[in-house]
Formats: sequence, C-alpha cells, structure tokens
Amino acid sequence: MNHDDVRRELDARMKELAVVRSTAGVLGWDEQTHLPPAGTAWRAEQSAYLQRLAHDKSTDARFGELIEYQVQHAPSGSAEAAEARELKRSFERAKKLPGALVEELARLEVLSQSAWVEARKKSAWLDFAPWLERMIELKRRVADCYGYEKHPYDALIEDYEPGATLASLKPVFEALREPLAKLVQKAADSGRRPPQLAGPFPIDRQEAFGTLAAKTIGFDFNAGRLDVSVHPFCTGLSAGDTRITTRYRLDDLSDALFGVLHEVGHALYEQGLPKAAHPGSPLADSISLGIHESQSRMWENLVGRSAAFWQYFTPIAREHFSSLKDVKESDILFAVNEVSPGFIRVESDEVTYNLHILMRFELETQLLDGSLKISDVPAAWDARVKKYLGLTVPDAARGCLQDIHWSAGLVGYFPTYTLGNLYAAQFYEQARKDLGDLDAMYARGEFAPLLGWLRDRIHQHGSRYTATDLVKRVTGRPLDPAPLLKHLNERVEAFYG
Amino acid sequence: MNHDDVRRELDARMKELAVVRSTAGVLGWDEQTHLPPAGTAWRAEQSAYLQRLAHDKSTDARFGELIEYQVQHAPSGSAEAAEARELKRSFERAKKLPGALVEELARLEVLSQSAWVEARKKSAWLDFAPWLERMIELKRRVADCYGYEKHPYDALIEDYEPGATLASLKPVFEALREPLAKLVQKAADSGRRPPQLAGPFPIDRQEAFGTLAAKTIGFDFNAGRLDVSVHPFCTGLSAGDTRITTRYRLDDLSDALFGVLHEVGHALYEQGLPKAAHPGSPLADSISLGIHESQSRMWENLVGRSAAFWQYFTPIAREHFSSLKDVKESDILFAVNEVSPGFIRVESDEVTYNLHILMRFELETQLLDGSLKISDVPAAWDARVKKYLGLTVPDAARGCLQDIHWSAGLVGYFPTYTLGNLYAAQFYEQARKDLGDLDAMYARGEFAPLLGWLRDRIHQHGSRYTATDLVKRVTGRPLDPAPLLKHLNERVEAFYG
Repeated sequence: MNHDDVRRELDARMKELAVVRSTAGVLGWDEQTHLPPAGTAWRAEQSAYLQRLAHDKSTDARFGELIEYQVQHAPSGSAEAAEARELKRSFERAKKLPGALVEELARLEVLSQSAWVEARKKSAWLDFAPWLERMIELKRRVADCYGYEKHPYDALIEDYEPGATLASLKPVFEALREPLAKLVQKAADSGRRPPQLAGPFPIDRQEAFGTLAAKTIGFDFNAGRLDVSVHPFCTGLSAGDTRITTRYRLDDLSDALFGVLHEVGHALYEQGLPKAAHPGSPLADSISLGIHESQSRMWENLVGRSAAFWQYFTPIAREHFSSLKDVKESDILFAVNEVSPGFIRVESDEVTYNLHILMRFELETQLLDGSLKISDVPAAWDARVKKYLGLTVPDAARGCLQDIHWSAGLVGYFPTYTLGNLYAAQFYEQARKDLGDLDAMYARGEFAPLLGWLRDRIHQHGSRYTATDLVKRVTGRPLDPAPLLKHLNERVEAFYG
Repeated sequence: MNHDDVRRELDARMKELAVVRSTAGVLGWDEQTHLPPAGTAWRAEQSAYLQRLAHDKSTDARFGELIEYQVQHAPSGSAEAAEARELKRSFERAKKLPGALVEELARLEVLSQSAWVEARKKSAWLDFAPWLERMIELKRRVADCYGYEKHPYDALIEDYEPGATLASLKPVFEALREPLAKLVQKAADSGRRPPQLAGPFPIDRQEAFGTLAAKTIGFDFNAGRLDVSVHPFCTGLSAGDTRITTRYRLDDLSDALFGVLHEVGHALYEQGLPKAAHPGSPLADSISLGIHESQSRMWENLVGRSAAFWQYFTPIAREHFSSLKDVKESDILFAVNEVSPGFIRVESDEVTYNLHILMRFELETQLLDGSLKISDVPAAWDARVKKYLGLTVPDAARGCLQDIHWSAGLVGYFPTYTLGNLYAAQFYEQARKDLGDLDAMYARGEFAPLLGWLRDRIHQHGSRYTATDLVKRVTGRPLDPAPLLKHLNERVEAFYG
C-alpha cells in the first residue's frame, strides 16, 4: 500500500457510503413529509435495505485495513489523522453490530414512527406502547452488542455525543436543576405576564415570514428547502441539499417561527460543513449532536429571542400579520420570552426547556436498565411533569406521546439538547468578545458576521476536533454551565426582574 | 435445484430489485418535485449508483440460472411461464449493456433534465443543445449494444413497446396522418369556435377540484399523492405509493385538470397492478408503455372530455370557480373539446395530438440515424409544426424545448402515446359493449364500473400477456386504427358538424 492509492481508495469508499446514506436520508425526509400512509410497509423495506447496505460497506474488511493504514501513517495532528481517528471509532463500533440487527432496527424505525404519528393524533398511548416495547428491546440488544462498563445508556449515547456517559451527564443536569427551578419560580412570583399575541396568523404568511427570516440569517434556499412535517427536523442530504421542516398553527406564530429558526441553526452548520471537498469523510461531518444542537439553540434563542432581533423583525412581522399591526415591539419581545411551564418541549421557553430534557433523560435511562416498565411510562411521565413543572398532563398527546424520538430509535439523544444549550451559551459569549456589538448588527439585519464566525470556528472543521477539544479551542476553557446560567438569569431579570 | 427453492430465491431477488428500483424512483420523483438546484450534482451520483446497483443485480449470473430454470420448467401457458418469459427478455437485454454505460446514462439523465428545466425557462436552445448531443450519443451506443437489424430506433423502442419497430410503426402513423389532417381542416372550415373559459382559476381551487376529480374516478389518496412539477408525470413506487403531478396556470383550467385526469389514468393502472402479491415480478409490472398510455388517454379524453362527465362535473366546477358561475354546461363541454392546432403537445386537442407525436417520431428517428444534426433540430421542428399544424413557432420553449423526454433519455418513447390512443379507443369500444350505458353512469358520478372492468381485463394481469395478445384477448381482434378514427370523427362531428 502507498499513500496515494490508500487515499484514492478510501475517498472512493467514503463517497460510496455517503451516496448510500444520503439516499437513505432522502427516504427518511420523504417518509416524514410526503409518504402516503399505505406506502409505509414498503418504505420500511427500502430503508432496511439501504441501512444494511451501508452497514455492510462500512464494516468491510478492506475498509478497515485502509483506515488502519491511515491511523498508522497520517502525520500526528493533521486533518488526515483526525479523519482516521473518527473513521476508526465508527468502524469499530459498526463491527460490533450484526447486519441483521441493523436491518431489523431500520425496518422498525419506519413502522414505529408511522404508528407514533397515528397514535399521537388520537392521543392513544396503547396503540404506541407495543412499538416502544419492541424498540427498547432492540436498543438494549444494540447496547449489549456495543458493550458498556456501567450502564447500557453509555453505549447508546456514544452514537450522539461521543465520550459522554450517564455518569458524566448526571452532574451537568444536577448543576442546572435547582438554579433553573428558582428562575421559573422567580418568573411566576413576579406576577408579570406578557400579552398573548393574538392571531390569526395565516399559514401562507407564516411560511413567507419564516422563509424570509431563514434567508436573512443565512439559509441558502438554492441549496435547501423548507417543508411541513409532524415534528420539525433538519436533514443535510448533500453539499447542495439541506432541508428543514416546521409545522403551522393558525392561532400561534411562535411554534412555527422558532421551529424554523431552530432548524435553520442546524442547517447553517450542515451548509457550512465541507461536504463538497470531502464527501463522506468525518472531516465533513458534524462532531456531535451536542455541537449540532448548539447551533440550532443559538439561532433560536440567543439570537432569535434577543431584543435586537425583534428590533429588526418587528416591522417585517407587522407587514406579514395584520393582527400584529398595533402590538408594541416590547410586547412581542416579552411574548417570545415568556417563562412559563407548559406541556410541550418544543414550544417551551428557554428556562423550562432543560427541565423537559432532564425528565426524558431520567425516563429513558430507566427504560433501558429495566427499572421502568413500558406500561408505567405514562404515569412516570405525568409524575415528573408534576414534579418539575407543576402541571397535570391532560392527555398522552401532550404527554409521553409528544416527541418523535423514541419511535425513531433515538434513545440517548435527548441530553444532547441540554449540552447544546450549554455549548451555545459558551460559544456565544466568545462570539460577543470577538465580534463586538452583535446586537447593533442584528438591529440592522446583519447576521453574516455571526455566521462567518461560526463557519470559521466550528463549521469548517467538521469532526477534526472532538467536541471537548473544540470547546476549549474556541472558548479557551472546558464546558462550563456558567454562561448558560448567566444568560438565563439576565433574560429572566430583563422581563421579570 | 427444485421448484420451491428456485421460487423462493427468485422471489427474493425480484423483491431486492424492486427495492432498489423503487428507491431510484423516489429519487426521481424528488428530483422533479423538490430537489433544490444545488442538489443536482449529488443527485446524479445517487441515481447513477442505484441504477448501476440495479443493473448489477439484474444481470447476475445466478439470477440468469434461476430464470432459465423457470423458462424450462414452468407449465406452458401458466402465469409462471409468462413471468419467466418477461424475466428472460429483460435479463438478456440488460446483459448487453455495460454497467459503466448504465451508470453514465443515469448520471446524464439527472444533469440533463436539470439543464433542460433551466433552458426551457429561458427558452435558450443553445443551453440545452450540448446535453442533447451527449444524450443522443449515449443512446446510439445503447442501440449498438442492444443490436438491431434495420434501424437503431428499433433497439430503443423495445424498452417502451416490446415488439414494435420503426417499420411496424410507420404504417400506423401513415393510416392516421391524412384522416387527422382532414378532421383538423373540417373543424377550421366550420368557422365555429367555443367561448374561451375565462379565469382566474385560483391555484388552490384548481388543486381542490383536481383532487376531487381524481378521487371520484378512483384514485386512492391513502396510497398516493398529487404534487406539482414542470412536466406532469406519474410514478408507481410501490403497492401503497403511486404519485402523480400536474402544473397550474391561473388563467387556464384545462391544462392542470386534464393533466390530473391523464396522470390518474396511469395511476389507476399502477394501483391496480398486483404489486403486493408479486413484488418486483413482471406479473406486477405494466406490459408496455402503449398499454400504460391507453389508460391515461382513456380517462383524460374518452371519459374526461365526454358530455356525461361534464354533466356530473359542471355543477362541481361552478362551486369551485366563481368565473364559471354563468357559463353554460354546453359551452364548457365545447371548450374542452375544441379542435385547434397549438404549439404545446400536452395542451393539444385529441385530434392534433397525434400530429404532435408524428413529428417527434420523425425527428428522433433522424437524430438517431444521424440524418438530422443537433444544431438543425430547432429548424426541423419549426418546419414540421408549419407543415402539420400550419403554425409558426414563436420560441424554443413553445417549440423543441417543450418536452422533458429527450433530456430524460426517453428516446423512442413518443410513439407509445399514439399507440395508447389507439389501444384506448379499441378497449373503450369493448367496455361500452360489455358495460352498457357508461354515459348514464358518469352522469351520476359513477366511474367504478369502468375502473372495475379495466382492473379485471387489464390491470390485474401485469405483464402476463404481451400487448399484442392483450388487445386480442380483451377486444377479440388485433390493434386497429378504426375505433380511434371513429371516435374522433364523432367528436368533431358533434361540435363542428
């Protein structure tokens, strides 16, 4: 083997994998946005076939040899060495899973998501329970295949946030729990409540406004699109094809708009990864979902709920919605910064959001180790909503059926949302130091400086640095809950102080 | 080998091929309906990969052995024997094409369609010419690989209408040319013109009306959908997933509506094929594009332009479009039956339609044998429009750039439209004999009897009978231009006599 041959063959194999995986991605996007109900069974076959194909290609012995060659020969500290490090990590994990299990899981994910959509519509927990039972069963088998030292959850979270474990996450949530509860209490005790933004907000106007906001902060519609789905998501299919979704309600502006801003945050990361230069390489892939989520949460919250953002967007919103014509800018700003416990995670405010995550994190670890039975999920869910948010869940649709994740096999994914909030606040603090008066820029509709900074510091590097290293590289210190707590304190103080 | 093992392995291999091909189908649908412009290059890679994979699987030596076993052992006259016959035909043809050529062609089809969309928008022939040049070059190579006795066109049309040749098609068109020209003349000489249906026809109302019409004639939206594309099409992705598209113009109702009726005709065939019972088998596949087109043209023209159809749908149309409130039913009927030469094939009336096909048929045979140069296409096109339709083409968008086919590699496809018209008229004559007063049924909104008859006589058989045999089986005699000419004479007589 010589370097050039290895490079060529490795590039070809990575590209092939990217072709197969991105095709599975198109199927997944289609499944959530357009697939007719009767097409689900066949879609499960297609998805299982492609996931199996990708698995076979990604565990091929020759692929392993090429990776090992790179691990041995790539110059220490080089991009090639980082690529080899990540390839090896993925290869070794993939080798631990039997192809048949990968295939079965892919099939189950399609069927189970479809069952979830129907069950959620009818708020019928019992229609979904058998699917969750089967999913948890398979996820336990996956964890057993991967292996773990302390808890099966550790084996799963590695797929989303490499290096994180149940033990490393617990103190992170512990550091947040009490301060967040106090902030919620402070908002409640203040007795202040923002005026509700009354609709109607016609769907086509919401779509136009969301599209304009997405464009303004930097989403490239020539290389992407915005559609509708039951649960908003972003999928980066190729260098020139990143798609986001949201969902609309005639009586509410925030749900769809902040959904768009959130997914655009993900999409800007996807559109900023060097996919055209390194198709299929870890160098063109996000390093972790926590880092991915830092991008979505930053644009949604730190930018999208800021006073400066609404200084620029209030007149535009008024042009789109006649019902906002006479609403004061400060009232709109307060309305989108209301801190008030609610049932739905994706509609929740910045403060209570992490409490939603905490309860999911607790429940899914228990589901995995068997200390929580499937049949007890609704009761356990409702009890935690009572405990953390002080609310009584009215039905499963607004309770344990609200999220797509478990139906899609995403067990161990939730903590990355809170990690994302933490990363986001710490990155943003640094961006403010580096870029100066961001608010003055936003007030003029200028979001390119922030995006350029994110491209330079984070996006372009793909998986070159681990999440832990990246945070240190960008901010000069390890992950720290202080910036997030400081930010949330300031926000709450601004509106409820 | 024993029968059960062969059956099992053959079924598995056919299903695998169906999975791969239907996945390519999803990519194709997405390409024409949703793909962002910058996603084209990667889509070409995905499509090339899947087409190559399907080609490799479909030419696998073991697959050939299984097919040969079935050819030898399936009882004569059985469904299994018919399946083996069609499998063998496809296998032997596929074996003649090098995988690299299949891959290159698939890549070119994506890139070239995208170039066509842009060129058509700008009416810029020169932007598309190099793509057509390359496509014809590759199509000649395909014809050379397949081999042919008399003309390269024969090798290509076999993909769309097995058994047809240039020599067999020429007399068919010859039999139509003069009688059709006379009918066009008769309409012109009568001096009669229908009142134009004045809009506006709001797009959302058109969509609602088209959806209702599609449902009413039998399209199952639980197993399908209706979207928008530059060029209307239908794609049958699986037993539960058949998708159609149309395109809307605010000032015109007919274009979108008859587009829907046409594509629903295709879709009813797709939804009626036994795909769930025989996934990937020729028994669940259409026998030829001529037969496929007979279904679309029947619902579009024989049903959709009939007086009885509009007896039922006129009040519904009036509910949807305020601009039709005071238009007489007979005027609507005349408007949708106007015979008048125009530039655009898909908007043309039933009589001139086949003249549009004739000129494309003549041009593409000449392109293939080299007697027409790419650079001469616009002039040759315009000359034929002058000759057959008496019109002067104003620009390439309304001339040689109007159709998607050549950009999509569909060379040899056009004649199947006219074959479809011929098959349709002959089938429909038989349906009238078998079912009695169809018009009375339509007037009551009952279209199920016709659909049931088509399911029973045509759809359920897939490729069991060749197109030639199917026509004889259903109508008791070989294909004959008389029913189409009789139908067109009656239509013209009714409005212009």
